[in-house]
Amino acid sequence: MAAGEASTRLDDAPRQERAALRYFEDLEDGEHLPALSVTLGEDDIVAFGAAYDPQPFHVDPDAAKESIFGGLVASGLHTLAACTRLVVDGQKGLVVVSGLGLDSVSFSSPVRAGDRLTIDAWWSDLKRSASKPERGFARLNCRIRNQDGVIVADYAYRYLIASRPIT
Amino acid sequence: MAAGEASTRLDDAPRQERAALRYFEDLEDGEHLPALSVTLGEDDIVAFGAAYDPQPFHVDPDAAKESIFGGLVASGLHTLAACTRLVVDGQKGLVVVSGLGLDSVSFSSPVRAGDRLTIDAWWSDLKRSASKPERGFARLNCRIRNQDGVIVADYAYRYLIASRPIT
Repeated sequence: MAAGEASTRLDDAPRQERAALRYFEDLEDGEHLPALSVTLGEDDIVAFGAAYDPQPFHVDPDAAKESIFGGLVASGLHTLAACTRLVVDGQKGLVVVSGLGLDSVSFSSPVRAGDRLTIDAWWSDLKRSASKPERGFARLNCRIRNQDGVIVADYAYRYLIASRPIT
Repeated sequence: MAAGEASTRLDDAPRQERAALRYFEDLEDGEHLPALSVTLGEDDIVAFGAAYDPQPFHVDPDAAKESIFGGLVASGLHTLAACTRLVVDGQKGLVVVSGLGLDSVSFSSPVRAGDRLTIDAWWSDLKRSASKPERGFARLNCRIRNQDGVIVADYAYRYLIASRPIT
């Protein structure tokens, strides 16, 4: 199961380097993922906003000028989604069993079209499941900065990770 | 500003009823939004997963069969995004200044293609800004259930809402 999962993911994610499978035991507390970046275009921001979060400041550049942002800004959910892609690409062969949730998400500064977002993500709270030792819990802490070094979002994922199979 | 924002939003959201503008003062602690529903299709699940969360169990039906889910499941971010649309539609004329973040998000059961998700969302923690009384803070608590009544996600938005303009 684990091998099938990961090889499929690698095939489906051409931006991701083909890498050895990694398991819960391979994670280290405090270990950082690669600092990958993404830039959201205006069309992307408007399309995501129109589909999922049609506040005027996400979908209408003219109305957005009159908002506190003074222009179009990305939905926070769009920022989260785009940065989730960076995390999945950066996990390189890690066998994720499931995402469990997100911890306190703060959108501290607006994200505008053309902003280059870079993720700083690091593991913590690694704990093997007591009832199912073939899995472990892990927290991935994320801080997103724009090209000026301003923090635009802070949050954490809670993941369930596969343990190394006993062979 | 407020009027322009809201009228634009109503124009851009045909599913939303045209309604009177609502402000921070119009919210009541414990007040529920309409219990709107959404169904995610398999193509939507795969497209969202491929763009933002390309784990095999979100993008590859065959690989997903071998996962703990036994089949394709929606990215938790997709569930959040789809339910954010329900919240925005259900807010009916509320003048939102900004989203501030999300509180502890738990994905407690998988969401599969064809599942009908219904939101129960209610306001709490209403607090006018001390430094900027033209705005107020509000928490929107959300519980998402599938067609069998099973809770699939629990979380809350933190919003900044415009106070009623002094005329």
